[in-house]
Amino acid sequence: MQIEIICTGDEVLTGKIINTNFSYMSQKLEDFGLSVKWETTVGDDREDLLQAFQRAGERADAVIVNGGLGPTVDDLSQEVAAQAAGVQLVLNEEWLARMREFFSRRGRTMSENNTKQAMLPEGAECVDNPVGTACGFAMTIGNARFFFTPGVPRELHRMLEYEIVPRLQQISGVQTVIHLKRFHSYGLGESHVDALLKGVEDLSPDGSVKLGFRAHYPQLETKLTVRGADDADIRAKLAPVEQEVHRRIGHYILAEDSDTLEGVVLQHLIDCEGSLTIVETFTGGQIAARIAPLPGAEAVFRRGVVSLHAQEICAALGMDGSTLPDPLTAEAAEQVAQAARAHTGTTHALAVLVTIEDGVDRIDLGGMICLAVATPNEVISRQSRLAGGREWVRLGAVEMGLDSLRRYLQGLPVREQNDFEQTQKV
Amino acid sequence: MQIEIICTGDEVLTGKIINTNFSYMSQKLEDFGLSVKWETTVGDDREDLLQAFQRAGERADAVIVNGGLGPTVDDLSQEVAAQAAGVQLVLNEEWLARMREFFSRRGRTMSENNTKQAMLPEGAECVDNPVGTACGFAMTIGNARFFFTPGVPRELHRMLEYEIVPRLQQISGVQTVIHLKRFHSYGLGESHVDALLKGVEDLSPDGSVKLGFRAHYPQLETKLTVRGADDADIRAKLAPVEQEVHRRIGHYILAEDSDTLEGVVLQHLIDCEGSLTIVETFTGGQIAARIAPLPGAEAVFRRGVVSLHAQEICAALGMDGSTLPDPLTAEAAEQVAQAARAHTGTTHALAVLVTIEDGVDRIDLGGMICLAVATPNEVISRQSRLAGGREWVRLGAVEMGLDSLRRYLQGLPVREQNDFEQTQKV
Repeated sequence: MQIEIICTGDEVLTGKIINTNFSYMSQKLEDFGLSVKWETTVGDDREDLLQAFQRAGERADAVIVNGGLGPTVDDLSQEVAAQAAGVQLVLNEEWLARMREFFSRRGRTMSENNTKQAMLPEGAECVDNPVGTACGFAMTIGNARFFFTPGVPRELHRMLEYEIVPRLQQISGVQTVIHLKRFHSYGLGESHVDALLKGVEDLSPDGSVKLGFRAHYPQLETKLTVRGADDADIRAKLAPVEQEVHRRIGHYILAEDSDTLEGVVLQHLIDCEGSLTIVETFTGGQIAARIAPLPGAEAVFRRGVVSLHAQEICAALGMDGSTLPDPLTAEAAEQVAQAARAHTGTTHALAVLVTIEDGVDRIDLGGMICLAVATPNEVISRQSRLAGGREWVRLGAVEMGLDSLRRYLQGLPVREQNDFEQTQKV
Repeated sequence: MQIEIICTGDEVLTGKIINTNFSYMSQKLEDFGLSVKWETTVGDDREDLLQAFQRAGERADAVIVNGGLGPTVDDLSQEVAAQAAGVQLVLNEEWLARMREFFSRRGRTMSENNTKQAMLPEGAECVDNPVGTACGFAMTIGNARFFFTPGVPRELHRMLEYEIVPRLQQISGVQTVIHLKRFHSYGLGESHVDALLKGVEDLSPDGSVKLGFRAHYPQLETKLTVRGADDADIRAKLAPVEQEVHRRIGHYILAEDSDTLEGVVLQHLIDCEGSLTIVETFTGGQIAARIAPLPGAEAVFRRGVVSLHAQEICAALGMDGSTLPDPLTAEAAEQVAQAARAHTGTTHALAVLVTIEDGVDRIDLGGMICLAVATPNEVISRQSRLAGGREWVRLGAVEMGLDSLRRYLQGLPVREQNDFEQTQKV
């Protein structure tokens, strides 16, 4: 089945907004085993829209059009769709009633120009939008079934997943259920994980599990797409592959599915009734900023101390600064983490001290990361050089710090191979 | 002149990477007074590429193709371009020599598959890429002049600005110089600034200044695009408009052109040999993280204190916690800022205390922001309610905190209308 996407709107065409709706749609379809073949972006221009609809209607089996369903004069999708199919626009009384209810539930009166949103091409099938006033619809233009969707991401996401994907699966004749299993990892590069996971797909005998990746430094997402007859079938097919992924890269998996590294760290600390102090330097507050704003952090996150100067950190923690080695070492991080824990009375402290190299920012500029996790009974440290310029070092130091804490909390080795390190001193 | 863009590559088509190259190109062309009419994305597929080139060659005057110039087998742009124009690929000896030099300067040997990057369609004009091995090129397909560009953003940016824009201006017959003047502001919404700046373009008598906006919450970018014969002409045309923009929204302009809010704050503190301590709560370290990592911050940024609990902040600053009002007020922020300054011995302290409202995250969830700036001689505070959900409140609180410090350092009123506030207590 050939699927096309048409994105509409001057704001997207002029680059004023980045077209994340397209990447969202394309990825979501991939997750369900459907592939986009061709994408077109045009502005709020009647002639261009018509041409785009007609050409896609000649080439494709299914077309998703995004945007242009709003109440204002530059929202042209319904009108041009009707023109392309040679039909009239007619008022959909049912949707008009839905809109009036939508507004009245919010204590507002519907503006008359919203009526435009209930005008659909004759014969179009209404596609539900429970979270907005733009009515989605489906109709045939040329050889293709067209699906018209709103530009507001929240409305699009719901409509695509719950309304359009099932219809596309029906058109494509694929009657299977698709499940996406995700593993988030830190410390191994994409090609390395690819090599480590070679052959895992074969553990599902009928080729129904597909392996994929999505790298967004410093994390890597490993995806298993599974097709099956129903949920039980999916679970049975996924289980041996999932188990093997854990066996091969388990230590590096920091979270699964919609969980996050910071969420996992917070949950472990909540579970053990722990409390946390974070000390950081060049990362400038970014480590604390991953934990502190999370719901539930009030019970765990005690204090963040940020400074670029070792002496200032000592002053903040009531430490004798003269005992700290210069340049900073893993031992210095241990001292700082222990002092931070003792000074603030927490169960856990994480210290991430970065010595950034001198000179103009450039791709080979690096920094030395000295980090430690302290508890009342022990302290564990790690020292690594990361490179790639100031921003890259900063991102890497934040992730390495949080991930080391995660490893400690899960009883895993804190010092283990990291593909992003340039030199390793332990 | 009709300009089209064709983006190529499976990674873009499947949504694995977000197509920021397109928004970059389209915006950059807009900045030079050139508009994109149509965009197409296709994968690394010979037939689709050919069809996309041919269709664009029928419709457009100029076409920019992005991607597919690399050394691997799935990089097909040169090959399909030659096919579309009915010519052969020929080795460009000059570019081959450039590539060999590129590698040898980096102490590496060129791999033989890189030779493919020097194969250009017969008759193509080489378009320089001084920062990579992909050779850009220009050629005619159908009715349009095609420009082939690399997918690597750094290489694309340089080639577009220095090589392709001048050629497009030549094709379009626009012989003028274009200058883009940018103002970054916080506190006024786009439609409000649009209303406030009504008519400013007319101060440039010949209509050669165009006003535009780009909103990325919490900041707004106001853009003046100026056309002129040369730099002196541009300066003369821009001056009265620029002056009027300053007169109307001057207090809200936090930085201009490539400057940033945090950079401006840092520079003011460097200029007055100042030093800074930042105290924050729900923003979790994000305010410190805007300043601390900047080059030059070592001399200014002294300490960041982060905690979600007022008592913990008092403990960190040697304050008597029993004197703080609950819930927090502007007066509490003043006390905290004064204590932070005194405790760390800095010239300036910024305290941003947020009380986030209870309940599940939702669009109307808000937070009370109490902030203060303290110096040895005075303390100034502000209290505002921001809404829009947890993330929105957090972003707004960071910006309001930094911008209040900027206003204080520039001798501007710290309490002034803010369109994002829901209620205002002064």
